[in-house]
Amino acid sequence: MNSFSYYAPTRVEFGLGAENKVGQLAKEYGATKVLVHFGGQSAVRSGLIDRVCASLDEAGLPHVELGGVVPNPRLSLVHKGLELARAEGVDFILAVGGGSVIDSSKSIGYGLACGGDPWDFNMGIRKPTGCAPIGVVLTIAAAGSEMSNSCVITNEETGIKKGCNSEYCRAKFAVLNPELTVTLPWYQTACGCVDIMMHTMERYFTPIGNLQLTDEIAEGLMRTVYDNAIVLHENPDDVEARAEIMWAGSLSHNGLTGCGNGGNDFASHALEHELSAAYDVTHGAGLAAIWPHWARYVMDACLDRFVLFAMNVMGIDPDDYETLEDAALAGIEAVEDFYREIEMPTNLHELGLELTDDDLAAMAHQCATLKGGTFGAAKKLTEEDALAIYRMANA
Amino acid sequence: MNSFSYYAPTRVEFGLGAENKVGQLAKEYGATKVLVHFGGQSAVRSGLIDRVCASLDEAGLPHVELGGVVPNPRLSLVHKGLELARAEGVDFILAVGGGSVIDSSKSIGYGLACGGDPWDFNMGIRKPTGCAPIGVVLTIAAAGSEMSNSCVITNEETGIKKGCNSEYCRAKFAVLNPELTVTLPWYQTACGCVDIMMHTMERYFTPIGNLQLTDEIAEGLMRTVYDNAIVLHENPDDVEARAEIMWAGSLSHNGLTGCGNGGNDFASHALEHELSAAYDVTHGAGLAAIWPHWARYVMDACLDRFVLFAMNVMGIDPDDYETLEDAALAGIEAVEDFYREIEMPTNLHELGLELTDDDLAAMAHQCATLKGGTFGAAKKLTEEDALAIYRMANA
Repeated sequence: MNSFSYYAPTRVEFGLGAENKVGQLAKEYGATKVLVHFGGQSAVRSGLIDRVCASLDEAGLPHVELGGVVPNPRLSLVHKGLELARAEGVDFILAVGGGSVIDSSKSIGYGLACGGDPWDFNMGIRKPTGCAPIGVVLTIAAAGSEMSNSCVITNEETGIKKGCNSEYCRAKFAVLNPELTVTLPWYQTACGCVDIMMHTMERYFTPIGNLQLTDEIAEGLMRTVYDNAIVLHENPDDVEARAEIMWAGSLSHNGLTGCGNGGNDFASHALEHELSAAYDVTHGAGLAAIWPHWARYVMDACLDRFVLFAMNVMGIDPDDYETLEDAALAGIEAVEDFYREIEMPTNLHELGLELTDDDLAAMAHQCATLKGGTFGAAKKLTEEDALAIYRMANA
Repeated sequence: MNSFSYYAPTRVEFGLGAENKVGQLAKEYGATKVLVHFGGQSAVRSGLIDRVCASLDEAGLPHVELGGVVPNPRLSLVHKGLELARAEGVDFILAVGGGSVIDSSKSIGYGLACGGDPWDFNMGIRKPTGCAPIGVVLTIAAAGSEMSNSCVITNEETGIKKGCNSEYCRAKFAVLNPELTVTLPWYQTACGCVDIMMHTMERYFTPIGNLQLTDEIAEGLMRTVYDNAIVLHENPDDVEARAEIMWAGSLSHNGLTGCGNGGNDFASHALEHELSAAYDVTHGAGLAAIWPHWARYVMDACLDRFVLFAMNVMGIDPDDYETLEDAALAGIEAVEDFYREIEMPTNLHELGLELTDDDLAAMAHQCATLKGGTFGAAKKLTEEDALAIYRMANA
């Protein structure tokens, strides 16, 4: 048994029309002036921003709007949002969007509560001492930022994409209406499904092994994502399947699936962040292109976990294979088949990148440097390991 | 898909020696004077109360102690605790014990925050508007009160045992050290395992059906309790199994296993509360004696759920049975076998009660009356239904 802390205080309101509660919810959490922060124009065109603003109006809450958040959310927009929020006397941030909008909102929240430039927290120069309260209306199931303590920002000037974890930034509430995700393009839906899978896989593959209950929850969650991603690929309008994926997205990254695991891995995330930072690929697709190669590289370091995964998540029967290694490999291949079935890449070429060995070496160097030399829990990885994995993904 | 709210803000600190953090934790949550509330002398004899008080001393927090909480916690001790807390200027209550101690602490917390007699809240005469902050050091895995919004008190003058649910009473933190439960007598351990199973069963058996992910989590949790209760029956010192049961206890009653189920059942709990109130039986044993009869009585109203349970939790293969009813019944019988294996009763005689039909009728009347006429979700039950189930349990 490994000790753990578990803290997931975000209040979830799940269901159709739940976004119409945001005014009342923001008021309950002490808002007096709200920044409505969002991404592209689709939230405006669909009428969602109007509905959200109407709910705030109904609760008597003044608000200002700031759109324009892009995937791999940029520090420059955080700075712009922070300036606006300070000038307008905002004391509550309502993120209407997915992980990029939420993380951008958290960064603004850090800046409001702590003063100065919130990028300091991502770079580890300062530690946050608070965060302005955040509410979320989720429009894409993927990052799990609506319940997580994570805030990943890209500094487009330095090309560094880096996260800052602290309990201060946990959202006060998250409104989850799966119907809002029905109109997403398939690519974004599939990238979201991969990201959700990965948040639990990053917690599942540890050399120590988790508690039985944690494994049961993790495996059940991964089966749920697998099943419903395939349902959605056939029928993207299936609101029940959208609901499963959405709830899985929140639980996959709130800490629940790693309780007692002795430490998360998150090496695939670290390797992917360099791809996103340098080539602006979509995070979920980048993870799909990296994971199988990471998995083959580290497999021997926690073989029993890979066999368990193959059996309990991917439906592999180890008795059909000569060795446990073969069964573990079959589980990895089944993940690749799954990713192909939902039109996700399984290597860097399929991701649309043609990289030189120098490109790979530069990413490996930056990845290891940002992580202080080594990273990962399933197997401790160095810069050399990172390069080897990038090369496998680029073969 | 059914809408749901999920809110489980309690911070969990899980692991060996975690009780030594309570002083720091109480301070973080604003305590300036602490009531240390506990049950019998075992917590004193084991040195636990000393360790807890030392941790409070180290954090510079003055404290007063009040022991004496008994199972089916009594209103008279709540009144005594409230008087003490008011006289001493207590602003934080640290519950060191199980469900009875925690619920007693919550009731005192309601009284401190709202004034007047907290029994009003259990009787529905007033609604709580707040609760003094509560921390928990758990010594028995069972009630799940450390993460739940529930507070069940017995008024020994009127013979009424009744719960009050509100978000105000959720503990700020819960310290879970499975080693503290190793010395429990077997009967209490087994009663705890039944109570934990039942908190998820009460959410699982609904006519509507839950989300896939919720079912995965619920079934995984029930399998975990089943497996580890049997391990503990063989070897009560197994700290790993104690850890599984303890974490399962907290997650089973924090709302997670019912998300999207369209409404919990809790009819077996209502039927059991009359047994506890009138005959002071241990809650978990009472639930074990009631559930199989409730299950047979309501089975047809949500047969598909009973078949799922038989398959996914109790390992029954429906193909081995002629009808789905037979498979569902086999699942119920497997639960009875499980309860017998861990020395739990499966009817009122085995519970040690010899009741007349008048006794049963009196309980059925009080049960239905306290519930406003009807109760349950798997099947709406009336006083007549309650009597029929009591008679089956007494046959």
